[in-house]
Amino acid sequence: MTISPEEDRLNAQIAFAIEIDKLKRIIRRNHLIDGSRRENTAEHSWHVGMLAMIFGEHAPPGTDLQRVVAMLLVHDLVEIDAGDTFIYDPVEVAAQAEAERAAADRIFGLLPADQSAWMRELWDEFEAMRTPEAKFAKALDRFSPILANHLTEGGTWPLFKVKAAQVKEKVRIIQEGSPSLGAYALELVELSVAKGHLAE
Amino acid sequence: MTISPEEDRLNAQIAFAIEIDKLKRIIRRNHLIDGSRRENTAEHSWHVGMLAMIFGEHAPPGTDLQRVVAMLLVHDLVEIDAGDTFIYDPVEVAAQAEAERAAADRIFGLLPADQSAWMRELWDEFEAMRTPEAKFAKALDRFSPILANHLTEGGTWPLFKVKAAQVKEKVRIIQEGSPSLGAYALELVELSVAKGHLAE
Ligand SMILES: [Ca+2]
Repeated sequence: MTISPEEDRLNAQIAFAIEIDKLKRIIRRNHLIDGSRRENTAEHSWHVGMLAMIFGEHAPPGTDLQRVVAMLLVHDLVEIDAGDTFIYDPVEVAAQAEAERAAADRIFGLLPADQSAWMRELWDEFEAMRTPEAKFAKALDRFSPILANHLTEGGTWPLFKVKAAQVKEKVRIIQEGSPSLGAYALELVELSVAKGHLAE
Repeated sequence: MTISPEEDRLNAQIAFAIEIDKLKRIIRRNHLIDGSRRENTAEHSWHVGMLAMIFGEHAPPGTDLQRVVAMLLVHDLVEIDAGDTFIYDPVEVAAQAEAERAAADRIFGLLPADQSAWMRELWDEFEAMRTPEAKFAKALDRFSPILANHLTEGGTWPLFKVKAAQVKEKVRIIQEGSPSLGAYALELVELSVAKGHLAE
């Protein structure tokens, strides 16, 4: 029995489709907006993809929103190997970069070469945060936990002793991708401080 | 204090973003591919969105794949009100249609009118299954549980006494959207029968 190039290609695609199912088992620090449990990275990726559709008009004119959606769907696949990084822990963030690159090599490498290169490019672009698409995608990824924490009496902020100044650094990232969402996020942060849900 | 039209619009978008977080609490009959637990509809929506990116070349030439991705991200939002439908229960399927329309009215109605109309159109198109985009999206939505069940010794099939002939009806839906994925799905079904994981 010989395997045709088409079968070979389909088998690689199927292997990748099966592998990425594991993202549903990666548990983030963040909670669902109703506070009921911690969020997994697959459902997080869906929610930020939806945010790109909902808040598209808050991106700079000309931003390719469909590319933003694609970028957000793949942006955290590396967590299958590298796990979730807590963005307020600088030591963890630094150690994570190398692990994530290795994860990207392995996971995207499961796909046929052309598709592997395409998805890797999306992920590299997201990480580099230079294009309007990457900046807007990153803004939504940072906006999401701020909204959730604001709605759950501070959520992970008091839990991990995060201070307002640290959250405001993340707000700056949101402002870079979307001035209007950045302004809104800053309001949420200040409201949370006023309510005593986020320490100054 | 007056609210500007811009603020009003942003508030509606935020309300929708918060509302759809509930999709993470909707539990489907299907299991994760590793069999560890049942799947929720938000992570399912992410996975089928990814399938559109992975299997795009199995759609008819000219299919707008970015539209397929958007369609799949929103296709199950109605389950927030209407719950998951078990596709092998005809009574459940019929009763569900009306509940889902009411859900679509309410949930998409949270958005500003132009966005509400746009997302509703995506959902109506998916449900009508007439365009190549809708047929391919539906094909991926049907392919996903067949792959998962095949990989988990039949998964929900023996659990809910589903027979091969019923699964083959779903395979026909896959074939309509993608002949090559349909052929592959049929192979999986026949392999599952041969292994005794799906009753004839
Ligand atoms: Ca993320």
